[in-house]
Order: sequence, then structure tokens, then C-alpha cells
Amino acid sequence: MAKIAVLIDHGFEDSEYSRPAEAFRKAGHELVHLGKKRGSVGKGKKSETPVVIDREAAGADPGDYDALLIPGGQSPDHLRADPEPVAFVREFAESGKPVFFICHGGQLLISADVLKGRKATGWKSIARDLINAGADYRDEEVVVDGNFVSSRQPSDLDAFIRESLKQLE
Amino acid sequence: MAKIAVLIDHGFEDSEYSRPAEAFRKAGHELVHLGKKRGSVGKGKKSETPVVIDREAAGADPGDYDALLIPGGQSPDHLRADPEPVAFVREFAESGKPVFFICHGGQLLISADVLKGRKATGWKSIARDLINAGADYRDEEVVVDGNFVSSRQPSDLDAFIRESLKQLE
Repeated sequence: MAKIAVLIDHGFEDSEYSRPAEAFRKAGHELVHLGKKRGSVGKGKKSETPVVIDREAAGADPGDYDALLIPGGQSPDHLRADPEPVAFVREFAESGKPVFFICHGGQLLISADVLKGRKATGWKSIARDLINAGADYRDEEVVVDGNFVSSRQPSDLDAFIRESLKQLE
Repeated sequence: MAKIAVLIDHGFEDSEYSRPAEAFRKAGHELVHLGKKRGSVGKGKKSETPVVIDREAAGADPGDYDALLIPGGQSPDHLRADPEPVAFVREFAESGKPVFFICHGGQLLISADVLKGRKATGWKSIARDLINAGADYRDEEVVVDGNFVSSRQPSDLDAFIRESLKQLE
């Protein structure tokens, strides 16, 4: 079973965390929540779904995890303001292990500069940013390119979870 | 005296709207608030500073205004998801009339594709997006390039307001 790092901060899109988290746990996988401050509690945009940060992204070792989940909402914008979460994403993405990102999640991959020539999608407001970062942007419910699985929005979650689970088999 | 369009939606960074708005009015200028739905009330991130939308950005004529203010926060991300506010910003920026943007405000100029070769700044989380959009990014409290005045964050507001008022003289 896989150990999945969830990179998250307050203001995340609730369902983009809670639905994959539920599906991953149900399949027997373990989640470790990485964020800004260990023990702090982040809430989603809808103020539901409190998440406790298990470890700080600063100092976390990508080698300790088998996959990475990046939910959307305002969380990725907060995280990309600091160099440590960006460095974590860069090392993880380059390792070839699965990276699952949805909605605004791709903002962290833009800051990590790992999208050049890669097929990807995201929330429509950041489509231009993904393209400018060198991504081959697709307006599709789920886009799989090697170790990257990406989706646009909450209504894509069924496809996003299905393709993410496949990478964990 | 100038007629200034303010392009705004809920979740804006309160002071990045309220402080320039106060200074512009004090100098005798008029503000018109453009957003998604006329008569709707948008609130800032701190839930202070209610703003009533005077006109919808869809159908607004850039020729009716002398300058454009784009406050930051989550507001620019909401607005850039629709084509009309982006088209308004593009036409305005290309008109040569002053555009004032701060923090995440530059996201709308990225979507409008008007930053190539232009000196600009913004909140550190979008620095990479500004660079990828072709901007000559500067980590400075205020950056003036022709008709563009940009700043990074609330602590830059004194300089942002000073340089913006100069463009309205």
C-alpha cells in the first residue's frame, strides 16, 4: 500500500481533498499531510473539513512518500509563496513518482518549473499560466501524462480519483 | 478629474481596494466599480469593506474610463475565469491609459497577454507566472512602466498610491 503526501494549506477546495482522501484510505493507502506548521489545523474554503498538518513541508523528504496529492482552492497559492513546498514538488515530480493535482494545484507545478512539454489541465483561471509554463494544456476531465494526473474542478473528481488509483496499483 | 474603473470581485485584499479608493476620491476622482453582476455586493477577504458593483464588466466600454485599478486578493482569480473582464483589461492596457495593479492584480494582465517586455511586479506567489507571461519582473515596492503602475503587497501601498496619483495629474 502507498504512503501519500498531501500538500495542503487553509482555503483548499473541500471536496478536492476530502473525496480523494476518502478513496485512497478506502483502498488501503496512508495519507501524510504536509503544510506550513506541524499540528496546525487548516480549513477548506467552505470551512468544513479541518485538516491537521502532520509534518512541515520544509524539511520533508520526497523519498519518504510514494505519491503526492495537491488539492486546489487557495491552498496552492499560499504554499507557492514559500520556497520549501515548491522544492518538495520539484524533487517529487522529477522522481517519476505519481503526482495528482487538480484545479489550482498546478500552480505549485508551475512554480516548480516541471511542466515543460507535459500534458496537463487545471481550473480555467490558470489555463494561461499552465500554457505559459510550457504545459500542453488540455480542457479535459482528467489528463494523464506519465506520472502526472490532473483535473480541472470538483465535477471531474470521479475521473481524477479513478486515474489516480490506477497509478497506485 | 479622472473617471477610474475598479475591476473587482469578492475576496479582494481589503486595503488594496480601500486605501487607493480613499486617496483617489480625496484627490477629486470618481470611481466606478465593474464586476460580475450589477448591484451585487462583494466583500474583501477580511469580510470588511463591502463594495457594490455599479456595472457589469461584460459590455463595459474601456473608452468610458480614464484609468483602471485592479486590487489583489482572490478577486483577480475569479474575474480571469471569464472572458469579458479579460477582454476589458486587454483593450484598456492597449489603449495606453493608466492601469494600476497590485498583489494578484497582475493575474488579469497575464490572462489579457499584455505583459510581454513590460516591467512589472506582483505578490511573490505569482512572480513565476508574471515572468512566464513575458514580464520583466522586479521585486520592488512600485514599478512604473509607461501606463502600468504595479506593486507587490499592502505594505507597498504608499508608493503605489503616490505613483498612481502622478499618472492621473
